[in-house]
Amino acid sequence: MNNVVVGKNAVLQLLLTGHKINQILINRNSKHDERINYIIELADNAKTPYRFVDQRDLTEKCRNVKHQGIIAYIPKRQFSEVEDIIDLAKSKNEKPFILILDGIEDPHNFGSIIRSSVAAGVHGIIVPKVKQADITPIVSKVSTGAVEQILIAKVANIATTIDALKAENIWIIGTEMNAPTSYSDQDYDMGIGLVIGNEGKGMSRLVKEKCDFLVQIPICDTIDSLNASVSAGIMIFKIKEVKDKIKGN
Amino acid sequence: MNNVVVGKNAVLQLLLTGHKINQILINRNSKHDERINYIIELADNAKTPYRFVDQRDLTEKCRNVKHQGIIAYIPKRQFSEVEDIIDLAKSKNEKPFILILDGIEDPHNFGSIIRSSVAAGVHGIIVPKVKQADITPIVSKVSTGAVEQILIAKVANIATTIDALKAENIWIIGTEMNAPTSYSDQDYDMGIGLVIGNEGKGMSRLVKEKCDFLVQIPICDTIDSLNASVSAGIMIFKIKEVKDKIKGN
Repeated sequence: MNNVVVGKNAVLQLLLTGHKINQILINRNSKHDERINYIIELADNAKTPYRFVDQRDLTEKCRNVKHQGIIAYIPKRQFSEVEDIIDLAKSKNEKPFILILDGIEDPHNFGSIIRSSVAAGVHGIIVPKVKQADITPIVSKVSTGAVEQILIAKVANIATTIDALKAENIWIIGTEMNAPTSYSDQDYDMGIGLVIGNEGKGMSRLVKEKCDFLVQIPICDTIDSLNASVSAGIMIFKIKEVKDKIKGN
Repeated sequence: MNNVVVGKNAVLQLLLTGHKINQILINRNSKHDERINYIIELADNAKTPYRFVDQRDLTEKCRNVKHQGIIAYIPKRQFSEVEDIIDLAKSKNEKPFILILDGIEDPHNFGSIIRSSVAAGVHGIIVPKVKQADITPIVSKVSTGAVEQILIAKVANIATTIDALKAENIWIIGTEMNAPTSYSDQDYDMGIGLVIGNEGKGMSRLVKEKCDFLVQIPICDTIDSLNASVSAGIMIFKIKEVKDKIKGN
């Protein structure tokens, strides 16, 4: 079985990171596009097979996601185990930095959160099996290919998984509008499981209760909340900032 | 002329902030929805006219944006002048904090940036007249109504506007992948015009040259860039964090 990766940036990232590609399909009218030509050059060097097809073939194959004239087939995604994520952190000699999504439903948010996670060196993402956006072509495209660069573990129960993480000395941090501590005053020098709640409902009650630390991003009171991928980005990069400063000292 | 605001959160925010509403249209099958009933209660209190219509009437009126059973008509948006934004900051006795969008084309990004700006107390947003997403129902919905809570000035030329801002003692800050200074080491205790570049191309050359400070958000080198609304969110909240700490001391 194949997975499909859609769009110029996403396919380019696959080639630049040496990801296994089964085949690339290119719109036969895109031959004058500079980025497409660069992709073809890289594919030639990597001996990755590609062929030119009609625009409408591409549109069909990627379920109407805007494909910018190019898609790639890659081997079907293998999901990871939570232990793989912890092992990756250990192998890098770093304290685990793990994202826990408590039901992100919008594929744009999911893709964007994956992109921020890879950009910040997060070790892996834990997602629930249900009530969570799947890894579809649109998620892959919004992530600009980052989805192929990070471990993702699908679990049956987020709350139980949190207990397992705590047993590994990982501290669970969630954001909550009325939390007494500002996100910028929190200590992040530890193994971290950062929970990102659902777009509409936030974290589930049980997950919130299991958090070791609840922090808030202070916002103006005429706004309910930030976009889920934006607040995830703010949290992820605040944690990265603190961890980088500690490493630098 | 009317503008249309779409979705439960967006319409709710209009009522909660006392925004002028001409009329609310509600799907006649949504009467059992709790949030819709809360909106109706607020509308009754504010003597805002509403009526119940068919689902397909709503879908037609809001150009296929998912409306969640409710839309509101509001008076056509009045754009502001750059001076209005500066005057607002002065009236609050605050150093100006202004966003300058150098061509944000994706309506999701535009809506999300507006939401973050209002949440962080940005005084206003400057957008170019061309190559910039318009304020459409989808932008309004993604902003969850925040678009009605902030001054937006449309200008013919961003570079010329930057010169005018500098004359007002506002310093121009842009993000750039290879900038030598990290965004977390920059001083933000000044009047600020924060430039957010286009999703694909970043800032235009001329605008970049006019920046007083270029900073980078450090990211992993297998990722090209962050999503525009995420990097905007990270910058906006870093600036807010620094300004809040100064205010607190």
